[in-house]
Amino acid sequence: MGNYKLTLSYDGSRYAGWQRQGNTGSTIQRKVEETLSRVLDEAVQVSGCGRTDAGVHARMQVCSFYSSALSSPEKTLTLLRRYLPEDIAAVRLEAAPPRFHARLSCREKTYRYRVWRSDCPNVFERKYLYSFPEPLSLPAMREAASELTGTHDFAAFSSGRTNKSTVRTVREIVLTENGPELTMSFTGDGFLYHMVRIMAGTLLEAGQGKRTAEDVRLALQKKDRSLAGFTAPAQGLTLWDIQY
Amino acid sequence: MGNYKLTLSYDGSRYAGWQRQGNTGSTIQRKVEETLSRVLDEAVQVSGCGRTDAGVHARMQVCSFYSSALSSPEKTLTLLRRYLPEDIAAVRLEAAPPRFHARLSCREKTYRYRVWRSDCPNVFERKYLYSFPEPLSLPAMREAASELTGTHDFAAFSSGRTNKSTVRTVREIVLTENGPELTMSFTGDGFLYHMVRIMAGTLLEAGQGKRTAEDVRLALQKKDRSLAGFTAPAQGLTLWDIQY
Repeated sequence: MGNYKLTLSYDGSRYAGWQRQGNTGSTIQRKVEETLSRVLDEAVQVSGCGRTDAGVHARMQVCSFYSSALSSPEKTLTLLRRYLPEDIAAVRLEAAPPRFHARLSCREKTYRYRVWRSDCPNVFERKYLYSFPEPLSLPAMREAASELTGTHDFAAFSSGRTNKSTVRTVREIVLTENGPELTMSFTGDGFLYHMVRIMAGTLLEAGQGKRTAEDVRLALQKKDRSLAGFTAPAQGLTLWDIQY
Repeated sequence: MGNYKLTLSYDGSRYAGWQRQGNTGSTIQRKVEETLSRVLDEAVQVSGCGRTDAGVHARMQVCSFYSSALSSPEKTLTLLRRYLPEDIAAVRLEAAPPRFHARLSCREKTYRYRVWRSDCPNVFERKYLYSFPEPLSLPAMREAASELTGTHDFAAFSSGRTNKSTVRTVREIVLTENGPELTMSFTGDGFLYHMVRIMAGTLLEAGQGKRTAEDVRLALQKKDRSLAGFTAPAQGLTLWDIQY
Protein backbone atom coordinates (compact mmCIF):
# COMPACT_ATOMS: atom_id res chain seq x y z
CA MET A 1 0.00 0.00 0.00
CA GLY A 2 1.73 3.19 -1.16
CA ASN A 3 0.91 6.78 -0.31
CA TYR A 4 0.83 9.24 -3.22
CA LYS A 5 0.76 12.99 -3.75
CA LEU A 6 -1.17 14.28 -6.75
CA THR A 7 -0.90 17.93 -7.81
CA LEU A 8 -3.81 19.33 -9.80
CA SER A 9 -4.98 22.55 -11.36
CA TYR A 10 -8.55 23.22 -12.37
CA ASP A 11 -11.04 25.70 -13.71
CA GLY A 12 -13.80 25.38 -11.10
CA SER A 13 -16.49 27.15 -13.18
CA ARG A 14 -18.69 24.16 -13.80
CA TYR A 15 -18.20 22.29 -10.53
CA ALA A 16 -20.01 22.28 -7.20
CA GLY A 17 -16.64 22.76 -5.49
CA TRP A 18 -13.87 20.39 -4.48
CA GLN A 19 -15.53 18.22 -1.89
CA ARG A 20 -17.53 15.12 -2.71
CA GLN A 21 -21.13 15.38 -1.48
CA GLY A 22 -22.38 11.81 -1.14
CA ASN A 23 -22.94 10.37 -4.58
CA THR A 24 -24.56 13.43 -6.14
CA GLY A 25 -23.24 16.67 -7.56
CA SER A 26 -20.39 17.23 -9.92
CA THR A 27 -17.44 17.93 -7.68
CA ILE A 28 -13.76 17.92 -8.52
CA GLN A 29 -12.91 15.40 -5.80
CA ARG A 30 -15.49 13.00 -7.18
CA LYS A 31 -14.24 13.40 -10.76
CA VAL A 32 -10.64 12.80 -9.63
CA GLU A 33 -11.60 9.78 -7.53
CA GLU A 34 -13.64 8.27 -10.35
CA THR A 35 -10.81 8.77 -12.82
CA LEU A 36 -8.13 7.41 -10.46
CA SER A 37 -10.33 4.41 -9.61
CA ARG A 38 -10.87 3.70 -13.29
CA VAL A 39 -7.20 4.06 -14.18
CA LEU A 40 -6.00 1.94 -11.24
CA ASP A 41 -8.94 -0.49 -11.29
CA GLU A 42 -9.22 -0.08 -7.54
CA ALA A 43 -11.47 2.09 -5.32
CA VAL A 44 -9.50 5.24 -4.48
CA GLN A 45 -10.37 8.01 -2.02
CA VAL A 46 -8.37 11.23 -2.06
CA SER A 47 -7.86 13.91 0.60
CA GLY A 48 -7.56 17.43 -0.82
CA CYS A 49 -5.55 20.25 0.72
CA GLY A 50 -8.05 23.07 0.12
CA ARG A 51 -11.82 22.59 0.07
CA THR A 52 -12.51 25.10 -2.67
CA ASP A 53 -16.15 26.29 -2.91
CA ALA A 54 -18.38 25.93 -5.95
CA GLY A 55 -16.93 28.04 -8.77
CA VAL A 56 -13.53 28.54 -7.13
CA HIS A 57 -10.45 27.65 -9.20
CA ALA A 58 -7.10 26.13 -8.36
CA ARG A 59 -3.81 26.94 -10.00
CA MET A 60 -2.39 24.44 -7.51
CA GLN A 61 -4.35 21.90 -5.51
CA VAL A 62 -2.76 18.90 -3.84
CA CYS A 63 -4.45 15.69 -2.82
CA SER A 64 -3.08 12.51 -1.30
CA PHE A 65 -4.31 8.93 -1.54
CA TYR A 66 -3.33 5.38 -0.75
CA SER A 67 -3.13 2.75 -3.46
CA SER A 68 -1.92 -0.80 -3.75
CA ALA A 69 -2.46 -0.98 -7.51
CA LEU A 70 -0.28 1.96 -8.52
CA SER A 71 3.14 0.82 -9.69
CA SER A 72 4.35 3.53 -12.07
CA PRO A 73 3.41 7.14 -11.19
CA GLU A 74 4.52 8.16 -14.68
CA LYS A 75 2.14 5.76 -16.43
CA THR A 76 -0.73 6.62 -14.09
CA LEU A 77 -0.11 10.34 -14.73
CA THR A 78 -0.32 9.78 -18.49
CA LEU A 79 -3.60 7.89 -18.10
CA LEU A 80 -5.03 10.52 -15.76
CA ARG A 81 -4.26 13.20 -18.36
CA ARG A 82 -6.04 11.10 -20.95
CA TYR A 83 -9.23 10.59 -18.94
CA LEU A 84 -9.64 13.74 -16.85
CA PRO A 85 -11.91 16.41 -18.40
CA GLU A 86 -10.22 19.40 -20.04
CA ASP A 87 -10.90 21.69 -17.07
CA ILE A 88 -8.95 19.50 -14.61
CA ALA A 89 -5.22 19.00 -15.16
CA ALA A 90 -3.04 16.40 -13.48
CA VAL A 91 0.20 18.34 -13.01
CA ARG A 92 2.37 15.90 -11.04
CA LEU A 93 2.08 12.50 -9.36
CA GLU A 94 4.70 11.22 -6.98
CA ALA A 95 5.21 8.74 -4.18
CA ALA A 96 4.88 10.35 -0.74
CA PRO A 97 6.07 9.37 2.76
CA PRO A 98 3.55 7.09 4.55
CA ARG A 99 2.38 9.83 6.92
CA PHE A 100 1.99 12.55 4.29
CA HIS A 101 -1.56 13.98 4.17
CA ALA A 102 -2.45 16.71 1.68
CA ARG A 103 -4.35 18.84 4.19
CA LEU A 104 -2.83 17.94 7.55
CA SER A 105 0.77 18.16 6.33
CA CYS A 106 0.18 21.54 4.67
CA ARG A 107 2.19 24.37 6.21
CA GLU A 108 0.77 27.34 4.33
CA LYS A 109 -1.65 28.13 1.51
CA THR A 110 -2.00 31.14 -0.76
CA TYR A 111 -5.31 32.18 -2.31
CA ARG A 112 -5.56 34.94 -4.90
CA TYR A 113 -8.63 37.04 -5.42
CA ARG A 114 -8.62 38.76 -8.82
CA VAL A 115 -10.68 41.91 -9.43
CA TRP A 116 -11.27 43.51 -12.84
CA ARG A 117 -11.73 47.24 -12.42
CA SER A 118 -12.44 48.42 -15.97
CA ASP A 119 -15.84 49.12 -17.55
CA CYS A 120 -14.52 47.28 -20.58
CA PRO A 121 -15.00 43.56 -19.95
CA ASN A 122 -12.06 41.14 -20.13
CA VAL A 123 -13.55 38.42 -22.34
CA PHE A 124 -10.60 36.03 -22.16
CA GLU A 125 -10.20 35.80 -18.40
CA ARG A 126 -13.80 36.60 -17.49
CA LYS A 127 -14.30 33.29 -15.68
CA TYR A 128 -11.43 33.95 -13.30
CA LEU A 129 -12.13 37.60 -12.47
CA TYR A 130 -14.70 39.48 -10.43
CA SER A 131 -15.77 42.57 -12.34
CA PHE A 132 -15.92 45.54 -9.94
CA PRO A 133 -15.50 48.81 -11.84
CA GLU A 134 -15.79 51.10 -8.80
CA PRO A 135 -13.27 53.68 -7.57
CA LEU A 136 -11.07 52.12 -4.90
CA SER A 137 -8.52 53.58 -2.53
CA LEU A 138 -5.58 51.17 -2.38
CA PRO A 139 -4.08 52.83 0.72
CA ALA A 140 -7.40 52.36 2.58
CA MET A 141 -7.49 48.71 1.46
CA ARG A 142 -3.90 48.16 2.64
CA GLU A 143 -4.69 49.69 6.00
CA ALA A 144 -7.67 47.36 6.47
CA ALA A 145 -5.55 44.42 5.26
CA SER A 146 -2.94 45.12 7.93
CA GLU A 147 -5.66 44.67 10.58
CA LEU A 148 -6.46 41.23 9.16
CA THR A 149 -2.84 40.15 9.09
CA GLY A 150 -1.64 38.15 12.05
CA THR A 151 -3.18 35.57 14.39
CA HIS A 152 -6.82 36.32 15.15
CA ASP A 153 -10.12 34.68 15.89
CA PHE A 154 -11.68 34.99 12.44
CA ALA A 155 -15.22 33.96 13.52
CA ALA A 156 -16.60 37.20 11.99
CA PHE A 157 -14.96 36.27 8.69
CA SER A 158 -16.62 32.93 8.13
CA SER A 159 -20.01 31.52 7.18
CA GLY A 160 -21.84 28.93 9.23
CA ARG A 161 -21.08 27.86 12.79
CA THR A 162 -18.53 25.47 14.10
CA ASN A 163 -17.46 24.20 17.51
CA LYS A 164 -13.88 24.02 16.31
CA SER A 165 -11.34 26.76 16.77
CA THR A 166 -11.80 29.78 14.50
CA VAL A 167 -8.31 31.07 15.24
CA ARG A 168 -6.08 31.29 12.19
CA THR A 169 -2.88 33.03 11.22
CA VAL A 170 -2.86 35.16 8.08
CA ARG A 171 0.83 35.72 7.51
CA GLU A 172 0.58 38.11 4.58
CA ILE A 173 -1.93 39.99 2.43
CA VAL A 174 -0.46 41.52 -0.72
CA LEU A 175 -2.39 43.87 -3.00
CA THR A 176 -0.99 44.40 -6.50
CA GLU A 177 -2.26 46.39 -9.45
CA ASN A 178 -1.56 45.36 -13.01
CA GLY A 179 -3.41 47.65 -15.43
CA PRO A 180 -7.14 47.31 -14.72
CA GLU A 181 -6.55 44.20 -12.62
CA LEU A 182 -6.25 44.26 -8.85
CA THR A 183 -5.01 41.09 -7.18
CA MET A 184 -5.38 40.37 -3.48
CA SER A 185 -3.14 37.57 -2.33
CA PHE A 186 -3.79 35.92 1.05
CA THR A 187 -1.22 33.60 2.63
CA GLY A 188 -1.89 31.78 5.87
CA ASP A 189 -1.84 28.51 7.78
CA GLY A 190 -5.51 27.82 7.02
CA PHE A 191 -8.77 29.53 6.16
CA LEU A 192 -12.31 29.06 7.49
CA TYR A 193 -15.35 28.48 5.27
CA HIS A 194 -15.77 31.58 3.01
CA MET A 195 -13.00 33.36 4.92
CA VAL A 196 -10.98 34.51 1.90
CA ARG A 197 -14.08 35.69 0.05
CA ILE A 198 -15.31 37.65 3.09
CA MET A 199 -11.85 39.20 3.58
CA ALA A 200 -11.83 40.13 -0.12
CA GLY A 201 -15.32 41.67 0.11
CA THR A 202 -14.34 43.56 3.26
CA LEU A 203 -11.21 44.98 1.63
CA LEU A 204 -13.23 46.08 -1.42
CA GLU A 205 -15.68 47.89 0.87
CA ALA A 206 -12.74 49.48 2.69
CA GLY A 207 -11.46 50.65 -0.71
CA GLN A 208 -14.84 52.24 -1.39
CA GLY A 209 -14.77 54.03 1.98
CA LYS A 210 -17.69 51.98 3.29
CA ARG A 211 -15.58 50.44 6.06
CA THR A 212 -12.47 51.48 7.92
CA ALA A 213 -9.52 49.62 9.41
CA GLU A 214 -11.13 50.35 12.77
CA ASP A 215 -14.30 48.51 11.64
CA VAL A 216 -12.19 45.49 10.73
CA ARG A 217 -10.56 45.50 14.15
CA LEU A 218 -14.00 45.70 15.75
CA ALA A 219 -15.40 42.85 13.63
CA LEU A 220 -12.51 40.60 14.72
CA GLN A 221 -12.94 41.61 18.34
CA LYS A 222 -16.73 41.15 18.46
CA LYS A 223 -16.63 38.02 16.28
CA ASP A 224 -19.68 39.43 14.52
CA ARG A 225 -20.20 38.46 10.88
CA SER A 226 -22.48 41.46 10.30
CA LEU A 227 -19.56 43.81 10.99
CA ALA A 228 -17.50 42.33 8.16
CA GLY A 229 -18.01 42.95 4.42
CA PHE A 230 -19.86 41.03 1.73
CA THR A 231 -18.82 37.60 0.49
CA ALA A 232 -17.05 38.31 -2.80
CA PRO A 233 -18.18 35.97 -5.65
CA ALA A 234 -16.47 32.61 -6.03
CA GLN A 235 -15.30 33.08 -9.62
CA GLY A 236 -12.63 35.66 -8.67
CA LEU A 237 -10.96 33.24 -6.27
CA THR A 238 -8.11 30.84 -7.07
CA LEU A 239 -6.19 28.53 -4.76
CA TRP A 240 -2.78 29.68 -5.93
CA ASP A 241 -0.04 27.92 -4.03
CA ILE A 242 0.54 25.38 -1.28
CA GLN A 243 3.61 25.03 0.93
CA TYR A 244 4.59 21.83 2.72
CA MET B 1 -25.98 59.89 -41.18
CA GLY B 2 -22.75 59.38 -39.24
CA ASN B 3 -20.00 56.82 -39.77
CA TYR B 4 -18.73 55.00 -36.69
CA LYS B 5 -15.81 52.79 -35.72
CA LEU B 6 -16.46 50.10 -33.12
CA THR B 7 -13.56 48.17 -31.56
CA LEU B 8 -14.40 44.74 -30.17
CA SER B 9 -12.73 41.80 -28.54
CA TYR B 10 -14.27 38.35 -28.30
CA ASP B 11 -13.83 34.75 -27.28
CA GLY B 12 -14.90 32.99 -30.50
CA SER B 13 -15.33 29.54 -28.92
CA ARG B 14 -19.09 29.29 -29.20
CA TYR B 15 -19.59 31.16 -32.49
CA ALA B 16 -19.73 30.12 -36.13
CA GLY B 17 -17.20 32.84 -36.91
CA TRP B 18 -17.47 36.56 -37.53
CA GLN B 19 -19.50 36.74 -40.70
CA ARG B 20 -23.28 36.70 -40.77
CA GLN B 21 -24.64 33.76 -42.78
CA GLY B 22 -28.12 34.74 -43.85
CA ASN B 23 -30.41 34.67 -40.85
CA THR B 24 -29.12 31.44 -39.35
CA GLY B 25 -26.13 30.51 -37.24
CA SER B 26 -24.74 32.24 -34.22
CA THR B 27 -22.10 34.58 -35.61
CA ILE B 28 -20.40 37.51 -33.92
CA GLN B 29 -21.39 39.96 -36.68
CA ARG B 30 -25.02 38.97 -36.26
CA LYS B 31 -24.90 39.32 -32.47
CA VAL B 32 -23.26 42.76 -32.76
CA GLU B 33 -25.74 43.94 -35.40
CA GLU B 34 -28.71 42.73 -33.36
CA THR B 35 -27.43 44.46 -30.25
CA LEU B 36 -26.59 47.73 -32.06
CA SER B 37 -30.00 47.69 -33.80
CA ARG B 38 -31.72 47.15 -30.47
CA VAL B 39 -29.74 49.85 -28.68
CA LEU B 40 -30.16 52.40 -31.51
CA ASP B 41 -33.69 51.33 -32.45
CA GLU B 42 -32.61 51.35 -36.11
CA ALA B 43 -31.47 48.60 -38.48
CA VAL B 44 -27.67 48.56 -38.43
CA GLN B 45 -25.26 46.64 -40.65
CA VAL B 46 -21.58 46.48 -39.73
CA SER B 47 -18.47 45.75 -41.83
CA GLY B 48 -15.78 43.87 -39.97
CA CYS B 49 -12.06 44.13 -40.60
CA GLY B 50 -11.17 40.46 -40.26
CA ARG B 51 -13.51 37.63 -41.15
CA THR B 52 -12.48 35.31 -38.37
CA ASP B 53 -13.43 31.62 -38.83
CA ALA B 54 -15.60 29.59 -36.49
CA GLY B 55 -13.80 29.26 -33.17
CA VAL B 56 -11.21 31.98 -33.87
CA HIS B 57 -10.86 34.73 -31.25
CA ALA B 58 -10.16 38.45 -31.48
CA ARG B 59 -8.18 40.47 -29.00
CA MET B 60 -8.90 43.36 -31.38
CA GLN B 61 -11.54 43.40 -34.09
CA VAL B 62 -12.78 46.60 -35.72
CA CYS B 63 -16.07 47.13 -37.51
CA SER B 64 -17.61 50.23 -39.05
CA PHE B 65 -21.24 51.15 -39.56
CA TYR B 66 -23.48 54.04 -40.55
CA SER B 67 -26.17 55.33 -38.21
CA SER B 68 -28.52 58.27 -38.09
CA ALA B 69 -29.85 57.42 -34.64
CA LEU B 70 -26.54 57.43 -32.78
CA SER B 71 -25.97 60.74 -31.00
CA SER B 72 -23.69 59.92 -28.06
CA PRO B 73 -21.01 57.25 -28.66
CA GLU B 74 -20.41 57.16 -24.92
CA LYS B 75 -24.02 56.31 -24.09
CA THR B 76 -24.24 53.78 -26.91
CA LEU B 77 -21.04 52.13 -25.68
CA THR B 78 -22.48 51.79 -22.17
CA LEU B 79 -25.66 50.20 -23.57
CA LEU B 80 -23.67 47.88 -25.83
CA ARG B 81 -21.69 46.68 -22.81
CA ARG B 82 -24.95 46.04 -20.99
CA TYR B 83 -26.54 43.96 -23.75
CA LEU B 84 -23.67 42.15 -25.46
CA PRO B 85 -23.02 38.61 -24.17
CA GLU B 86 -20.09 38.12 -21.81
CA ASP B 87 -17.85 36.67 -24.54
CA ILE B 88 -18.05 39.80 -26.73
CA ALA B 89 -16.67 43.08 -25.38
CA ALA B 90 -17.26 46.53 -26.82
CA VAL B 91 -13.88 48.17 -26.27
CA ARG B 92 -14.29 51.57 -27.95
CA LEU B 93 -16.85 53.42 -30.06
CA GLU B 94 -15.97 56.61 -31.90
CA ALA B 95 -17.09 58.76 -34.80
CA ALA B 96 -15.11 58.02 -37.98
CA PRO B 97 -14.46 60.01 -41.20
CA PRO B 98 -17.23 59.43 -43.81
CA ARG B 99 -15.04 57.26 -46.02
CA PHE B 100 -13.61 55.09 -43.24
CA HIS B 101 -14.30 51.37 -43.78
CA ALA B 102 -13.13 48.81 -41.24
CA ARG B 103 -11.77 46.38 -43.85
CA LEU B 104 -10.92 48.55 -46.84
CA SER B 105 -9.15 51.24 -44.78
CA CYS B 106 -7.08 48.66 -42.88
CA ARG B 107 -3.35 48.92 -43.53
CA GLU B 108 -2.08 45.89 -41.67
CA LYS B 109 -3.35 43.09 -39.42
CA THR B 110 -1.61 40.84 -36.93
CA TYR B 111 -2.83 37.34 -36.09
CA ARG B 112 -1.31 35.27 -33.32
CA TYR B 113 -1.29 31.51 -33.26
CA ARG B 114 -0.67 30.12 -29.77
CA VAL B 115 0.69 26.60 -29.28
CA TRP B 116 0.89 24.79 -25.93
CA ARG B 117 3.80 22.37 -25.98
CA SER B 118 3.57 20.69 -22.58
CA ASP B 119 2.02 17.31 -21.76
CA CYS B 120 0.47 19.02 -18.76
CA PRO B 121 -2.69 20.78 -19.96
CA ASN B 122 -3.19 24.51 -19.38
CA VAL B 123 -6.71 24.51 -17.96
CA PHE B 124 -7.10 28.29 -17.72
CA GLU B 125 -6.20 29.23 -21.30
CA ARG B 126 -7.18 25.95 -22.92
CA LYS B 127 -9.74 27.60 -25.21
CA TYR B 128 -7.13 29.90 -26.74
CA LEU B 129 -4.33 27.40 -27.23
CA TYR B 130 -3.62 24.52 -29.57
CA SER B 131 -2.10 21.67 -27.59
CA PHE B 132 0.83 20.21 -29.56
CA PRO B 133 3.28 18.49 -27.22
CA GLU B 134 5.73 17.37 -29.94
CA PRO B 135 9.46 18.16 -30.18
CA LEU B 136 9.94 21.20 -32.44
CA SER B 137 13.04 22.78 -33.94
CA LEU B 138 12.61 26.55 -33.68
CA PRO B 139 15.49 27.27 -36.09
CA ALA B 140 13.81 25.06 -38.74
CA MET B 141 10.52 26.85 -38.15
CA ARG B 142 12.20 30.26 -38.49
CA GLU B 143 13.86 29.19 -41.72
CA ALA B 144 10.51 28.11 -43.17
CA ALA B 145 8.90 31.33 -41.88
CA SER B 146 11.45 33.42 -43.74
CA GLU B 147 10.30 31.78 -47.01
CA LEU B 148 6.72 32.84 -46.28
CA THR B 149 7.70 36.41 -45.46
CA GLY B 150 7.37 38.91 -48.29
CA THR B 151 5.02 39.38 -51.25
CA HIS B 152 3.93 36.05 -52.75
CA ASP B 153 1.06 34.35 -54.45
CA PHE B 154 -0.33 32.44 -51.46
CA ALA B 155 -2.76 30.25 -53.46
CA ALA B 156 -1.16 27.11 -51.92
CA PHE B 157 -1.87 28.53 -48.47
CA SER B 158 -5.60 28.94 -48.75
CA SER B 159 -8.74 26.82 -48.81
CA GLY B 160 -11.33 27.05 -51.55
CA ARG B 161 -10.96 28.70 -54.93
CA THR B 162 -11.29 32.31 -55.89
CA ASN B 163 -10.98 34.33 -59.07
CA LYS B 164 -9.57 37.23 -57.11
CA SER B 165 -5.88 37.85 -56.59
CA THR B 166 -4.19 35.52 -54.15
CA VAL B 167 -1.14 37.76 -53.86
CA ARG B 168 -0.53 39.07 -50.35
CA THR B 169 2.33 40.61 -48.44
CA VAL B 170 3.34 39.04 -45.15
CA ARG B 171 5.58 41.68 -43.64
CA GLU B 172 6.72 39.77 -40.59
CA ILE B 173 6.46 36.39 -38.86
CA VAL B 174 7.74 36.35 -35.29
CA LEU B 175 8.14 33.16 -33.25
CA THR B 176 8.47 33.56 -29.50
CA GLU B 177 8.73 31.04 -26.70
CA ASN B 178 7.41 31.71 -23.23
CA GLY B 179 7.75 28.61 -21.05
CA PRO B 180 5.71 25.82 -22.66
CA GLU B 181 3.94 28.30 -24.95
CA LEU B 182 5.05 29.01 -28.50
CA THR B 183 3.48 32.00 -30.21
CA MET B 184 3.57 32.57 -33.96
CA SER B 185 2.72 36.13 -34.87
CA PHE B 186 1.83 36.93 -38.50
CA THR B 187 1.62 40.55 -39.71
CA GLY B 188 0.54 41.44 -43.23
CA ASP B 189 -1.69 43.54 -45.45
CA GLY B 190 -4.29 40.79 -45.69
CA PHE B 191 -4.80 37.05 -45.40
CA LEU B 192 -6.70 34.58 -47.57
CA TYR B 193 -9.28 32.12 -46.26
CA HIS B 194 -7.50 29.77 -43.77
CA MET B 195 -4.14 31.29 -44.73
CA VAL B 196 -2.86 31.94 -41.20
CA ARG B 197 -3.93 28.50 -39.99
CA ILE B 198 -2.24 26.79 -42.96
CA MET B 199 0.94 28.82 -42.43
CA ALA B 200 0.84 27.85 -38.73
CA GLY B 201 0.34 24.16 -39.60
CA THR B 202 3.16 24.31 -42.16
CA LEU B 203 5.56 25.88 -39.66
CA LEU B 204 4.69 23.23 -37.06
CA GLU B 205 5.45 20.50 -39.63
CA ALA B 206 8.71 22.28 -40.47
CA GLY B 207 9.53 22.24 -36.74
CA GLN B 208 8.93 18.49 -36.69
CA GLY B 209 11.22 17.98 -39.67
CA LYS B 210 8.34 16.88 -41.91
CA ARG B 211 8.83 19.84 -44.27
CA THR B 212 11.74 22.07 -45.17
CA ALA B 213 12.10 25.71 -46.15
CA GLU B 214 12.67 24.40 -49.67
CA ASP B 215 9.24 22.68 -49.57
CA VAL B 216 7.63 25.97 -48.58
CA ARG B 217 9.33 27.75 -51.50
CA LEU B 218 8.06 25.04 -53.84
CA ALA B 219 4.50 25.19 -52.48
CA LEU B 220 4.39 28.94 -53.12
CA GLN B 221 5.86 28.51 -56.59
CA LYS B 222 3.56 25.67 -57.67
CA LYS B 223 0.52 27.17 -55.94
CA ASP B 224 -0.30 23.68 -54.78
CA ARG B 225 -2.24 23.31 -51.52
CA SER B 226 -1.10 19.70 -51.11
CA LEU B 227 2.50 20.89 -50.80
CA ALA B 228 1.69 23.04 -47.76
CA GLY B 229 1.02 21.79 -44.22
CA PHE B 230 -2.16 20.99 -42.31
CA THR B 231 -4.71 23.59 -41.29
CA ALA B 232 -4.00 24.22 -37.62
CA PRO B 233 -7.17 24.21 -35.45
CA ALA B 234 -9.14 27.45 -35.11
CA GLN B 235 -9.00 27.68 -31.33
CA GLY B 236 -5.28 28.56 -31.26
CA LEU B 237 -5.83 31.60 -33.50
CA THR B 238 -6.51 35.16 -32.35
CA LEU B 239 -6.87 38.33 -34.42
CA TRP B 240 -4.44 40.33 -32.32
CA ASP B 241 -4.01 43.81 -33.73
CA ILE B 242 -5.16 46.05 -36.59
CA GLN B 243 -3.32 49.05 -38.02
CA TYR B 244 -5.04 51.88 -39.91
